[in-house]
Amino acid sequence: MNAEIIAVGSELLLGQIANTNAQFISEQLALLGIDVFFHTVCGDNEPRLRDAIKKAESRAELIIFTGGLGPTKDDLTKETVARVLGKKLVADQKAMDSMLDYFKVTGREMTENNLKQALVIEGSHILPNSQGMAPGMIVEEGGHVYLLMPGVPSEMRPMFLDFAKSYFAHRHSQHIQSRVLRFFGIGESQLETKIIDLIDAQSNPTIAPLAKESEVTLRLTAKHESKEEAEKMLDLIEQKIDQRVGTYLYGYDEVSLPEVVFGLLQAEKKTIAFAESLTGGMASEWMTGFPGASSILNGGIVCYTNEVKEQVLHVPTEVLKSDGAVSARCAELMASSIRTLCGSDIGVSFTGVAGPDKSEGKDVGTVYIGFADGDNSRSYLYQFKGSRRKIRIQSVKTGYDLIRRYLRRLPAIVK
Amino acid sequence: MNAEIIAVGSELLLGQIANTNAQFISEQLALLGIDVFFHTVCGDNEPRLRDAIKKAESRAELIIFTGGLGPTKDDLTKETVARVLGKKLVADQKAMDSMLDYFKVTGREMTENNLKQALVIEGSHILPNSQGMAPGMIVEEGGHVYLLMPGVPSEMRPMFLDFAKSYFAHRHSQHIQSRVLRFFGIGESQLETKIIDLIDAQSNPTIAPLAKESEVTLRLTAKHESKEEAEKMLDLIEQKIDQRVGTYLYGYDEVSLPEVVFGLLQAEKKTIAFAESLTGGMASEWMTGFPGASSILNGGIVCYTNEVKEQVLHVPTEVLKSDGAVSARCAELMASSIRTLCGSDIGVSFTGVAGPDKSEGKDVGTVYIGFADGDNSRSYLYQFKGSRRKIRIQSVKTGYDLIRRYLRRLPAIVK
Repeated sequence: MNAEIIAVGSELLLGQIANTNAQFISEQLALLGIDVFFHTVCGDNEPRLRDAIKKAESRAELIIFTGGLGPTKDDLTKETVARVLGKKLVADQKAMDSMLDYFKVTGREMTENNLKQALVIEGSHILPNSQGMAPGMIVEEGGHVYLLMPGVPSEMRPMFLDFAKSYFAHRHSQHIQSRVLRFFGIGESQLETKIIDLIDAQSNPTIAPLAKESEVTLRLTAKHESKEEAEKMLDLIEQKIDQRVGTYLYGYDEVSLPEVVFGLLQAEKKTIAFAESLTGGMASEWMTGFPGASSILNGGIVCYTNEVKEQVLHVPTEVLKSDGAVSARCAELMASSIRTLCGSDIGVSFTGVAGPDKSEGKDVGTVYIGFADGDNSRSYLYQFKGSRRKIRIQSVKTGYDLIRRYLRRLPAIVK
Repeated sequence: MNAEIIAVGSELLLGQIANTNAQFISEQLALLGIDVFFHTVCGDNEPRLRDAIKKAESRAELIIFTGGLGPTKDDLTKETVARVLGKKLVADQKAMDSMLDYFKVTGREMTENNLKQALVIEGSHILPNSQGMAPGMIVEEGGHVYLLMPGVPSEMRPMFLDFAKSYFAHRHSQHIQSRVLRFFGIGESQLETKIIDLIDAQSNPTIAPLAKESEVTLRLTAKHESKEEAEKMLDLIEQKIDQRVGTYLYGYDEVSLPEVVFGLLQAEKKTIAFAESLTGGMASEWMTGFPGASSILNGGIVCYTNEVKEQVLHVPTEVLKSDGAVSARCAELMASSIRTLCGSDIGVSFTGVAGPDKSEGKDVGTVYIGFADGDNSRSYLYQFKGSRRKIRIQSVKTGYDLIRRYLRRLPAIVK
């Protein structure tokens, strides 16, 4: 089965919003094993919408519409689909009742044009709208399936997940299970090289690599009649991947590296503090994004000038003079000092050159990360590339990965 | 003139990314007075792309492509357009030179397939790519205009704004000038109420309000045969708006509040330091995002626990006991202490309850911002609403607006 998604709404063509509905539905259809060949966006204009429907019928079996189910004259999706199919619109009692309910509960006055929302295409399968008034509908006709949903994402998403999805799943006897593995510290091509035989041999499960900002993910997807078997297939392929590149694997699906590190610190009841030069507070800020951060992060110092490094963080003047602020020794002293000052179990420091200009004769992208966990303090040297923003983010992520590796008793990686 | 935008890339059909390019281009075309009737997304597949081009030719004069200009076999936009138009691909020397330069500067090795990126459609007008390697191109043929641009937004956007836009502006005799006014500290409805007569009377220039995350913008758009006259029309309407809500106006177009504050501090040669509790380093981090931050930001302390507030920031234990950490006195002492410790002209502090739970019996969203500029230290109390993330961002933005108002000699606003 292949699909086309038609979004109806002039606000999309004016650039007021992006078509995130098509993204969401495409992602969901990929999980269901349904291929999407086209997205179309069309304005609130009957002849043009009719043209788009005709074109879609010529190249897709499943045609999914978002938008144009509301109460105003501009909303003409179901009217146009009904006309193309030669079908009538009829009042749906359930939709009518739930609409009357809605106005009663919210105390708002119902205007005449709202009645239009309770009209559905005759013979269609109705999809309830748990977040709004206009119901969705599915019509099967002439070898095509037409799915109509509202355009507001907060109404469309639950409608798709709770009702439309199971409709399609019933048509397929197959379960499609998916799992995303998230890696840090290894490049896309390096990862691919290490598992190229698995990728070349893939069919079911499939293995799809994707490079994100300084990270790489692998999406594993297995199809089977039994959900449990599909999961087992995923476990098996993950095991093989894990044997080769497991130390770079930090998490699954939508989890982020900071979230993983936060969880590890919580589980081990360890506290942390950051001394930040080039990263300017980013490392601390990422931790404080999570509720309960006060039991993990004691504090931090942003030491953007040498004076603050000396006077607040107590890095000796001699070290700043002899080794410079961007140096292994300075990074180590920053880490041990912040640990002592904030009374934390672990101290991590960042000092380097974010650019755009060289500093202390050191190239843009030169970054030292210091790590202190007791009397022991060490540092790691990195050479990052890219914009100022990229270098700073890469620095913080690498610092977080050092903490992850420390708590997981894995060796630190240095490039 | 009317347009269709064709995005080429299977990653869009898999739902891995949203088609934000179409949104950006649509918004820009609306400003140029060009109507967009359709968006199409098509995969990396020649027959289907060919079909999409044919369809677009039947309904649009201007056809804009994004994506598919890269070095791999999957990238086939210019090849397909050239074939549809019966034209050849030829090597462009400028594109070749800038590509060789890129590899030289980054020290990366150039693989054979990169050469493909320097090929352009014969007779096309070339658009330089300031952020990457693949150039864009414009071809005029048979009453149609074909514009091809890369799919990476950071490459496409400057290419459109710097090169494609002026190409279209030259074709129109009307100039469309646009200006965005950015406001902080005033709600959308409050702003609208104050200028409702101007909004109701608008035709040319038009005034379009838009609420963004804790900010409001007004987009003014004027049309005139003369660019200068259009600019004068904008000046005139801005003057009227400025008389009523000028103190909330912090900047224009794409500028951000931190950028404005950074510029003001630079212009006045003032240095700053932040003491951050609930904001966790965000205020410092925003400053360090700009090159040259080391002459503005001396440093900062993230004092997430009371121990750090006492031992690093020297807030007296008595104050933490009597008034609590979330209090006017604590905020004032944090601000004056960070100013002294870091030796800066201005010290700003943040202490409050980000949630999800109450703290010290104070409601979620209670935030004190301290401000010290000499011996004088004062504080402001706010009650913010929303998620943990929203409360923290709102706090930092409000702190930045306090700095802006201080440097502009405007009264602070308190809610």
